[in-house]
Amino acid sequence: MPSLDDSTRGRILFGGDYNPEQWPEETWQEDVRLMKRAGVNSVTLGVFSWSKIEPRPGAREFGWLDRLMDLTHANGIGVVLATPTASPPPWMGARHPETLPRDEQGRTVWWGSRQQFCASSPTYRAYAAAITEDLAARYAGHPALTMWHINNEYCTHCWCDETARHFRRWLGTRHGTLDALNEAWGTAFWSQRYDDWEEIIPPRHAQYLHNPAQLLDFKRFTSDALMECCTAERDIVARHTPHIPVTTNFMPLWSGQDAWRWAEREDVVSVDIYPDPKDPLGGQYNAMLGDMTRSQARGPWMLMEQSAGAVNWRGVNHPKPRGLNRLWSLQSVARGADAVCYFQWRQSRQGAEKFHSGMLGHAGEEGRTFRETCRIGSELGALGAHVAGSRIEADIAVLHDWNSWWADQQDGRPSVRLEYTDVVRAWHRALWESGRTTDFAHPEHDLTGYRLVVVPHLYLLTDTAIGNLLRYVRGGGTLVSGFLTGVADGDDRVRPGGMDARLRALFGIGTLHEWWPLDAGERVACEGFLGTLWSEEFEVAGGEVVAAYRGGELDGMPAVVRNGRAWYVSTLPEPDALRALLGRIADGAGAEPVLAGLPAGVEAVRRGELLFLLNHNREPVTVPLPGVHRELLTGTRVSGGLTLERHGVAVLGETSP
Amino acid sequence: MPSLDDSTRGRILFGGDYNPEQWPEETWQEDVRLMKRAGVNSVTLGVFSWSKIEPRPGAREFGWLDRLMDLTHANGIGVVLATPTASPPPWMGARHPETLPRDEQGRTVWWGSRQQFCASSPTYRAYAAAITEDLAARYAGHPALTMWHINNEYCTHCWCDETARHFRRWLGTRHGTLDALNEAWGTAFWSQRYDDWEEIIPPRHAQYLHNPAQLLDFKRFTSDALMECCTAERDIVARHTPHIPVTTNFMPLWSGQDAWRWAEREDVVSVDIYPDPKDPLGGQYNAMLGDMTRSQARGPWMLMEQSAGAVNWRGVNHPKPRGLNRLWSLQSVARGADAVCYFQWRQSRQGAEKFHSGMLGHAGEEGRTFRETCRIGSELGALGAHVAGSRIEADIAVLHDWNSWWADQQDGRPSVRLEYTDVVRAWHRALWESGRTTDFAHPEHDLTGYRLVVVPHLYLLTDTAIGNLLRYVRGGGTLVSGFLTGVADGDDRVRPGGMDARLRALFGIGTLHEWWPLDAGERVACEGFLGTLWSEEFEVAGGEVVAAYRGGELDGMPAVVRNGRAWYVSTLPEPDALRALLGRIADGAGAEPVLAGLPAGVEAVRRGELLFLLNHNREPVTVPLPGVHRELLTGTRVSGGLTLERHGVAVLGETSP
Amino acid sequence: MPSLDDSTRGRILFGGDYNPEQWPEETWQEDVRLMKRAGVNSVTLGVFSWSKIEPRPGAREFGWLDRLMDLTHANGIGVVLATPTASPPPWMGARHPETLPRDEQGRTVWWGSRQQFCASSPTYRAYAAAITEDLAARYAGHPALTMWHINNEYCTHCWCDETARHFRRWLGTRHGTLDALNEAWGTAFWSQRYDDWEEIIPPRHAQYLHNPAQLLDFKRFTSDALMECCTAERDIVARHTPHIPVTTNFMPLWSGQDAWRWAEREDVVSVDIYPDPKDPLGGQYNAMLGDMTRSQARGPWMLMEQSAGAVNWRGVNHPKPRGLNRLWSLQSVARGADAVCYFQWRQSRQGAEKFHSGMLGHAGEEGRTFRETCRIGSELGALGAHVAGSRIEADIAVLHDWNSWWADQQDGRPSVRLEYTDVVRAWHRALWESGRTTDFAHPEHDLTGYRLVVVPHLYLLTDTAIGNLLRYVRGGGTLVSGFLTGVADGDDRVRPGGMDARLRALFGIGTLHEWWPLDAGERVACEGFLGTLWSEEFEVAGGEVVAAYRGGELDGMPAVVRNGRAWYVSTLPEPDALRALLGRIADGAGAEPVLAGLPAGVEAVRRGELLFLLNHNREPVTVPLPGVHRELLTGTRVSGGLTLERHGVAVLGETSP
Repeated sequence: MPSLDDSTRGRILFGGDYNPEQWPEETWQEDVRLMKRAGVNSVTLGVFSWSKIEPRPGAREFGWLDRLMDLTHANGIGVVLATPTASPPPWMGARHPETLPRDEQGRTVWWGSRQQFCASSPTYRAYAAAITEDLAARYAGHPALTMWHINNEYCTHCWCDETARHFRRWLGTRHGTLDALNEAWGTAFWSQRYDDWEEIIPPRHAQYLHNPAQLLDFKRFTSDALMECCTAERDIVARHTPHIPVTTNFMPLWSGQDAWRWAEREDVVSVDIYPDPKDPLGGQYNAMLGDMTRSQARGPWMLMEQSAGAVNWRGVNHPKPRGLNRLWSLQSVARGADAVCYFQWRQSRQGAEKFHSGMLGHAGEEGRTFRETCRIGSELGALGAHVAGSRIEADIAVLHDWNSWWADQQDGRPSVRLEYTDVVRAWHRALWESGRTTDFAHPEHDLTGYRLVVVPHLYLLTDTAIGNLLRYVRGGGTLVSGFLTGVADGDDRVRPGGMDARLRALFGIGTLHEWWPLDAGERVACEGFLGTLWSEEFEVAGGEVVAAYRGGELDGMPAVVRNGRAWYVSTLPEPDALRALLGRIADGAGAEPVLAGLPAGVEAVRRGELLFLLNHNREPVTVPLPGVHRELLTGTRVSGGLTLERHGVAVLGETSP
Repeated sequence: MPSLDDSTRGRILFGGDYNPEQWPEETWQEDVRLMKRAGVNSVTLGVFSWSKIEPRPGAREFGWLDRLMDLTHANGIGVVLATPTASPPPWMGARHPETLPRDEQGRTVWWGSRQQFCASSPTYRAYAAAITEDLAARYAGHPALTMWHINNEYCTHCWCDETARHFRRWLGTRHGTLDALNEAWGTAFWSQRYDDWEEIIPPRHAQYLHNPAQLLDFKRFTSDALMECCTAERDIVARHTPHIPVTTNFMPLWSGQDAWRWAEREDVVSVDIYPDPKDPLGGQYNAMLGDMTRSQARGPWMLMEQSAGAVNWRGVNHPKPRGLNRLWSLQSVARGADAVCYFQWRQSRQGAEKFHSGMLGHAGEEGRTFRETCRIGSELGALGAHVAGSRIEADIAVLHDWNSWWADQQDGRPSVRLEYTDVVRAWHRALWESGRTTDFAHPEHDLTGYRLVVVPHLYLLTDTAIGNLLRYVRGGGTLVSGFLTGVADGDDRVRPGGMDARLRALFGIGTLHEWWPLDAGERVACEGFLGTLWSEEFEVAGGEVVAAYRGGELDGMPAVVRNGRAWYVSTLPEPDALRALLGRIADGAGAEPVLAGLPAGVEAVRRGELLFLLNHNREPVTVPLPGVHRELLTGTRVSGGLTLERHGVAVLGETSP
Repeated sequence: MPSLDDSTRGRILFGGDYNPEQWPEETWQEDVRLMKRAGVNSVTLGVFSWSKIEPRPGAREFGWLDRLMDLTHANGIGVVLATPTASPPPWMGARHPETLPRDEQGRTVWWGSRQQFCASSPTYRAYAAAITEDLAARYAGHPALTMWHINNEYCTHCWCDETARHFRRWLGTRHGTLDALNEAWGTAFWSQRYDDWEEIIPPRHAQYLHNPAQLLDFKRFTSDALMECCTAERDIVARHTPHIPVTTNFMPLWSGQDAWRWAEREDVVSVDIYPDPKDPLGGQYNAMLGDMTRSQARGPWMLMEQSAGAVNWRGVNHPKPRGLNRLWSLQSVARGADAVCYFQWRQSRQGAEKFHSGMLGHAGEEGRTFRETCRIGSELGALGAHVAGSRIEADIAVLHDWNSWWADQQDGRPSVRLEYTDVVRAWHRALWESGRTTDFAHPEHDLTGYRLVVVPHLYLLTDTAIGNLLRYVRGGGTLVSGFLTGVADGDDRVRPGGMDARLRALFGIGTLHEWWPLDAGERVACEGFLGTLWSEEFEVAGGEVVAAYRGGELDGMPAVVRNGRAWYVSTLPEPDALRALLGRIADGAGAEPVLAGLPAGVEAVRRGELLFLLNHNREPVTVPLPGVHRELLTGTRVSGGLTLERHGVAVLGETSP
């Protein structure tokens, strides 16, 4: 199977989405000149070119793309070639209205934007296959081609009748019989028993709460339906070019795709990451998504999209301050990226994304943004040979699962304030701030080899996952779990006692009486810290009370318990407290920071032989550092310590004591 | 006519909804064992069993229900048997899409939740009648049967074409001629004159404000259409079992049903009450709904549903702290309940309500919730003989009317901040905190016998109601009214002068110049207190100014006026001030507190010969008490006073001085 | 062409909408009596009378209107006669459902409110033309008729298929070819290329962001489609009565109509103005809309609707405090109104607007509101001869354009916090508070003659407009521009460099690096003041830095620059700072306040020979005033100064030194 190495060939890919159909061909020449100046070695073509290639059903206009492929190749720039299937042309909806999605409320989702396709539509699938076939046939042998990019940010949902038919088929595969489905969905409640497969529909606009297992299965189905589309296109291009890797770009921590499942089917795992430049913890967010993507890729990964400056889809869209683009780009490399790419090369002047920044912004060649693009390109060029293909070792795994997230984010649950991603982020932040590098893992993955496994919050755990965790601890591992974990089985059925009995035994917990979710702004006092978001009323049975609640209704009851190497934290400690607690547990497990004694806001990551130091502060900072190192970006020798400019980065190699 | 006494037979009913179709039959045996341990003497079966009984059109599966009826009877547990018509099976919507409601925006309301029926659908009605008929025929003679429960929380609205036809028919009955309807609705404005009955539709999604009288009539119609469904089923079961009482459970202070009208057609008035456990005034809320339901029942009533702990439909769902379930249960008895029941017996593990607590929670037999269930069951068992069937006397009536509420809660009114139920609650709270027991009454009810009648705010008053109030005061009664009362007639037509002239004369008010609604957070100063929400610019004509506005645009103008025994309060005084003002008026009217000198947070209610003392504080409190009493829950003798634990209750009988 | 003078004939029109179909004819007599008492000389009839005149298709009921026309005429009251086409009768939607609008989400907009018509519907247009024809024919010669009023507050939008057909036709006219349209809309992006006109639809509910140029053209089209309806009716009435002026009432600063284009087609520009009585800057708002309407009218204008007291469509609807109705009415006259009218004469008792105040409120003749109505009527009667037809001279023009506003208010832009009207209001406020009278102008208008041109914020500027601004400055004018101006061309295409190069040269700006929108509550420090909402990172090239940013990411970079007579302000200074800055620039340009040394909150405006002094404070204030004047409202002689009561007004004429 081909891999990212087949595209990078020892370099770091640097470049971005290139949508030249927006400009006259004269501009293409200018683009290539500036790409070379910026060190761009890869562009992604064709993402939104369907109506250009196929202006009417069955037509094919490849001439412009031929010229582009030749032009980039002539200038030493590789091409990640996209199937254009994310955005069907207007004629598709106009001639085949059944390809348009219907939303949960029955509204047609019209053309005039993008992604207006129902993933279950046979018409859409047929057109998509045909253009993919022709594209692959035409460019299979082109020397510029380095990778296939299927569709773009798969994300459509549909509730139409065709979708209903696919959903039923999918449910048949999952549940076998209607009786099994009725059992799994608990349709005895609220008189929802299905007597015929034809009665089953997607969870559409209803009077009150939906059946939660139906919602969960519909999430699973939708992810799989999109994956079916992706796989169909992948199979076509792979038939033409078995040696060229294929990817599709994920939106990370987005709920629509079970990326663990998808990643297994990818040659290259690529992702679009857009931290908010105004978020003081944007660097942690970037680190977390890098860690997650690397873990899905099980090695080097591709940053398919980031922004050089502002995006245009937040409420207030802040540009990146001086140095931040470089900092986060190098941070991604430090955390395993072998490709640093952007949406998009040249900022649009028209269309819905004209206020989304580009590597070459509206300000043009003289703009600050383009000057920073050039600096990054140059540095990645110098760094490539040292880093491409190298790996990162982590002692710690954070568990994350889409099924649990999906089950967790429905209506009719204990607290709307409980946001799965917030909790995952809070726990990752504690580890990141304490200087420990972490992987992510699925709860059914092999966890041996990790010193510490962290479960921020997994409401749903299958029996397999629970067995896995028990085995891990029995095998000597240290496990720490946040609240509301192991509550439901794979069909979102609450386990007897409200939390799986084996897990309760593992943590030394007896009866779990009640969940006490906290209101906005509410804090619950515990011994030595304040808890947020959640608290629980339970008894220990064998566990040691590490910290008890203080005051309020839970006064004196256990808040944090441990039972040997298994820890349970029944609230979300405030950041400093969670960091201290996790630090203590990690120390006990032998999972140490990359570098001791770092100043606040400085991140250290080891990738292969290299040590990356990243200053997330807006002020310069001095880092004490034993030994003598060679700093690769400046080529200087570092001894005793070094000063990092605001948002500065050092990459240290060839270390001697 | 049968009544609640026919079900209670001298006991307090204790139990709840039981949905055993969710579990294997082994669990039923376990359930019955635990019910007996908990003192459960009544369960409600069948509420959501339609798809179980009629898995496909016309089928009947009664075997499981036969076994359940026999099982409960064998164990001395009575059955409140529900018609399962609240939640049609999926096949109904799939085969008969015309039974699905259309919402105001034209969206279909699909199955997959519950209550997806259009109350006007003849198809739905026919299926509902058929299953009701068969259910009634089968269990008419079963010894476990103690009550019929029609449907569940009737609440659907529909704007479909079939509904339009029923609406026209209803309007024909109400208005007689199209001219009368045009007159009543004021269709001369905005060119809305109807020339043909067929032109009339429900108030659907429109460009701007709807016709308010159309909205009001549609609310009335919807309440009546649901009542038609209810009555049709009641008539069927009553034909089979004339001696068994029939009920349907209300959602109290819910705008969809005019409960005064419904209650007249009920053998038993039952209600579902869910105070927020985190609401510091949850006890007042529980008291208010108890008072309201008792007034609708004109005697003992049934608490059909409450929760043993958390619900799952608020944003953040708090469990009940230790003792609160017992406190509120006994409070309901104190205020007239002869049945204390829950949704539901055993907490679900699947389905949309699995996070709604049960009498037997996920924690099971060892859980705190079940232990409290057992205590309550035991105490109600002991108390039953002393209290069941006894009555409560009140000197005060608070007036409440759905028509006024409906007219009050439309768009295009002086202030969106004016919430009818908030105002009613504020006035009831003042009375509750001052220790006075109150009834509720409809403004057209006979009010003689009350020392004080309180009108928190009745925007709409019919001529009959106004005549009733005038007669009441003329007859020696004391009346106090809040602002914006008597503004509109029964068709929401503003009365000349902006407030009915007879009422102005009653209160000694002259010209009413302007309403001055207050902004969020705004307070208006009055002599001795601050007003909230509302103020008014008017002149007195015969009335005495009790308190004037101070400062601002209304400086020196009257805020509170009285004219003999008629008082008018043109703002909403802050809680302490309203309590003081009402206390003064009530004292003047001879409507005294149940017990003088009670500590704050302690409620005293007299029911029959018994005196209930309820401590709403989270700390123990000592209550001074003249005389010698027997406390029924502990069986001890109380003399001089007693200490109530946190959330504690005492029930005193056999008093001697 | 007829003009407002033909209706006013040397008087100020005073009156309002009169909807007598709501009351029995007895009430009409009472109305006329009270109108005469109040000095009413004009009423608007027929606005919502369609279903009364045409109760069923083709019927005509004119008798009641004949009687009304005769009655008003007999009492010396002129009639502004409306075509009733704003609110089709129920039968239109019931018989012709295709006349009902479909909203963006595909929902039908039903009858039961008002304005339920699709402007593109040929059926609606045919019925509207027919009733307009008959109305015009019948009353062309009636002596009461003084003006025609077409429809009312044109505002419907529609996304239906008929609208799509009209939109395509309109686009054909605008763009000529499909290629040109594809180019103008930038459809190369996101694969939106249209291959056939039939593929084009209105921007309906979609997956993500719409094409911005499509949105912009749809706004233009909708304004034009409504204008087509208006023009068609105007042509009909004008054919019957070429001597009678025609108007339609605008909602000012409402985004649905490009009032500059509409005003060109009006004999009389009329407008509905509803400041919030609770807004401390309500007087500035009233002044701004008066200035804008006067500029559209290029002379005296008509205040078609204001409220005597509260409206009923805000969240909390405050009445007008004593004196405010009079203050704002006279302020409108001061700023050019020759007609002061209200919605509506007699407050409704039924219908959706019964809580909207009237000149004659629910309180009736004795109410404060009616007493103030009478005072205003009497004073306007006395003032009319002195003021009607006279003009206002302004040194300053504020530029305003709907196209720019439309392009500015879409999704996917730098900041959702940027509200076009807020920015315009902030700049007008600065001028108003500094006592300078301003006109408004379109950016393509002739600007010669103004000493100062102010561009609060015009994101979109055509080449013509840019040429106009350059010519204006070259010709000696002073120009000051707020941020994000000149960014896009007429098709919302971002200009190279992010801001037009000619404008950058004009202001002395070099590279524009990035926009830095500010978060809610965020302030950016500049030399001497704080900026809000927005900031920018750019370099000067020839410009002089008037103030630099201080601190933060933009520390030391230019905030305000000038290049000779051209100023650029890259943030929104807080009110005091913007007033000071604009005052300095205006002084430099020789644009001086009407009167120096006025107390805060006192407004001075010169109209013709008269000087209006208006006290917006709630306290009396003394105004020093050189010379001797005759005060027209009191008939007194003023010397050395005068005291204005709270909300008081003085109108000074016959001035001698």
